[in-house]
Amino acid sequence: MESWAKRDDMIVHETEPYNAETPGPALAGRTLTPVETFYARNHGPIPDIDPGDWRVELAGLLDRPLTLSLAQLRAGFAHREVIATVQCAGNRRAGLLAVRPIPGETPWGAGAISTARWTGVSLADVLAEAGPRHDAAHVEFTAPDVAADACPPEPFGGSIPLAKAVAGEVILAWAMNDRPLPPLHGGPVRVVVPGYIGARSVKWVTRITVRDRPSGNYFQAVRYRLAPAGADPGEGFPLGPVAINADILTPVDGAVLAAGPVSVSGYAFGGEHRGVARVDVSADEGRTWRQADLDPTPGPWSWRLWRIVLDLPAGAATVTARAWDTAACCQPEYAASLWNPGGYANNAWPRVRVDLR
Amino acid sequence: MESWAKRDDMIVHETEPYNAETPGPALAGRTLTPVETFYARNHGPIPDIDPGDWRVELAGLLDRPLTLSLAQLRAGFAHREVIATVQCAGNRRAGLLAVRPIPGETPWGAGAISTARWTGVSLADVLAEAGPRHDAAHVEFTAPDVAADACPPEPFGGSIPLAKAVAGEVILAWAMNDRPLPPLHGGPVRVVVPGYIGARSVKWVTRITVRDRPSGNYFQAVRYRLAPAGADPGEGFPLGPVAINADILTPVDGAVLAAGPVSVSGYAFGGEHRGVARVDVSADEGRTWRQADLDPTPGPWSWRLWRIVLDLPAGAATVTARAWDTAACCQPEYAASLWNPGGYANNAWPRVRVDLR
Repeated sequence: MESWAKRDDMIVHETEPYNAETPGPALAGRTLTPVETFYARNHGPIPDIDPGDWRVELAGLLDRPLTLSLAQLRAGFAHREVIATVQCAGNRRAGLLAVRPIPGETPWGAGAISTARWTGVSLADVLAEAGPRHDAAHVEFTAPDVAADACPPEPFGGSIPLAKAVAGEVILAWAMNDRPLPPLHGGPVRVVVPGYIGARSVKWVTRITVRDRPSGNYFQAVRYRLAPAGADPGEGFPLGPVAINADILTPVDGAVLAAGPVSVSGYAFGGEHRGVARVDVSADEGRTWRQADLDPTPGPWSWRLWRIVLDLPAGAATVTARAWDTAACCQPEYAASLWNPGGYANNAWPRVRVDLR
Repeated sequence: MESWAKRDDMIVHETEPYNAETPGPALAGRTLTPVETFYARNHGPIPDIDPGDWRVELAGLLDRPLTLSLAQLRAGFAHREVIATVQCAGNRRAGLLAVRPIPGETPWGAGAISTARWTGVSLADVLAEAGPRHDAAHVEFTAPDVAADACPPEPFGGSIPLAKAVAGEVILAWAMNDRPLPPLHGGPVRVVVPGYIGARSVKWVTRITVRDRPSGNYFQAVRYRLAPAGADPGEGFPLGPVAINADILTPVDGAVLAAGPVSVSGYAFGGEHRGVARVDVSADEGRTWRQADLDPTPGPWSWRLWRIVLDLPAGAATVTARAWDTAACCQPEYAASLWNPGGYANNAWPRVRVDLR
């Protein structure tokens, strides 16, 4: 067991593979999540790759296939930084589990999401060097970690459309919050795909394959798809871009508090190509709303933290929030409407029950 | 009164200014809406501009301000076509009005939306010729129609971010479904901003002003904003990009039908930077859903029509639909949650009551 698996400041759902989310109070109030408390989602053991040994091979529909070391990546391309929120497709699955069981999937709460400053090179620049052919349409990432929950077991992988891969914001990152990327978070080098589910930000990436169709990897073709109730594995549409979402970080569900002014805080994330326009908070199940104060955004790919002080009388109360994106799209009311067999993409209004005394 | 104001195949809400929506059955089954039945939203009288006299002036934060005639536009830039859905920000307002009155706003049903093939030149190409300065951030469009409902009255206008203006899909269009753009729809030349509310697709555009901030026009600074309940005019965030939406076109609400197989059809529109991933239809208020068949998409800026045959027994039934966008964002359940003082952006699940006999 590595030291990171013993951290008592994380909610560890599994140790092998290591899956841990950040408790709400640890996420609250900090736009950048410290490396130590950044959520971790894994499908296999953490590879131990010496930075000097790491290579990434670019192959497939390319005019100039190439293999790059970390030194070549650093020396050959302009360095880029992006502040990006990474959110697991299963973030907030617990809200769906309360509707109906979802066997075999991690019961993530609000904390399968974190934000960091990522430093590396733009995938667009690397692909330009390799020269995608005219029939290129998707870019697949593959890692060396063998996922035991793939069927049959295979290395973790997935793909994104070429248009996203060359848009500029996708990074091959070697640093996180100005520190070398630790193995737990994909070091020596990982992909960061801002605005997409975390599964596409493939850690320990060693192969980038340009294709004419999406990856056939189990985690693209079978898992991480939004399917209707009763669907068979592999049905549904593939998850990639993420939508507006928000959750309440403080107070925590079930908190016992002094009646009077109560500070409520949380995050809101606009997702792919959308900002956060407004966050509303209600203590009367949506009959009346007040607008939360939004922290400034550090960039287009980051969540925005929010906060508000509510004056709550003695008794039980449910605090609800809802975020609107810049396309005036509001979160749906109820997780019951969003239930799906994979337990993905829950972006219903969050609700926290508190007891004021 | 012009002949178009007498059409009995449109739902005419107002004649001066002329505001008319397309009945559901006229929209159903045709990805491209015929010019004759394309919805019309106006704030003032329709200008009568001779194509030979029309000019557009590009001004503001430009290195090379210029004025172009229609002939110069046609001869000087590559011709571009885009199939784009245009949707009024108030489309489906009737669903919000059923919650609470919204004085002075048109009670649009499902038909303040239509789709056409637009031909013209890319605004990106024209702006490249004019050379936006480094402090350019927004592009304002102004038309000569004086809007009586502006306060004080002023020509209609609005703006979009420069990034959108130069992305390629924004068109200065002189043709609609391969016919010269009629005056009612903005001829000789209008702007078409795919993925944005119809108000930004300014008709009869005669001035394009590059600015460092959004337009101060009444229809950008005061109207067409999403505000919380109880807000004063001008509060709220400006509407631009639109979100996932869908409505049922056939059968119409209140229809009396033969029990048995009932064909249900409608549209779904992913909006800005999103496709339509799935449409579900329910005849039991969302307890069970079936997936509708989606028509192929003619491009990234178009709605997708959908259809399904439901077997409905005798009695009253409510047919409900919901669309999911490619970011796994589903429409919210209830219009009551979306009510806002301007009556904009209703994208709640549509519901149609039918009587089976």
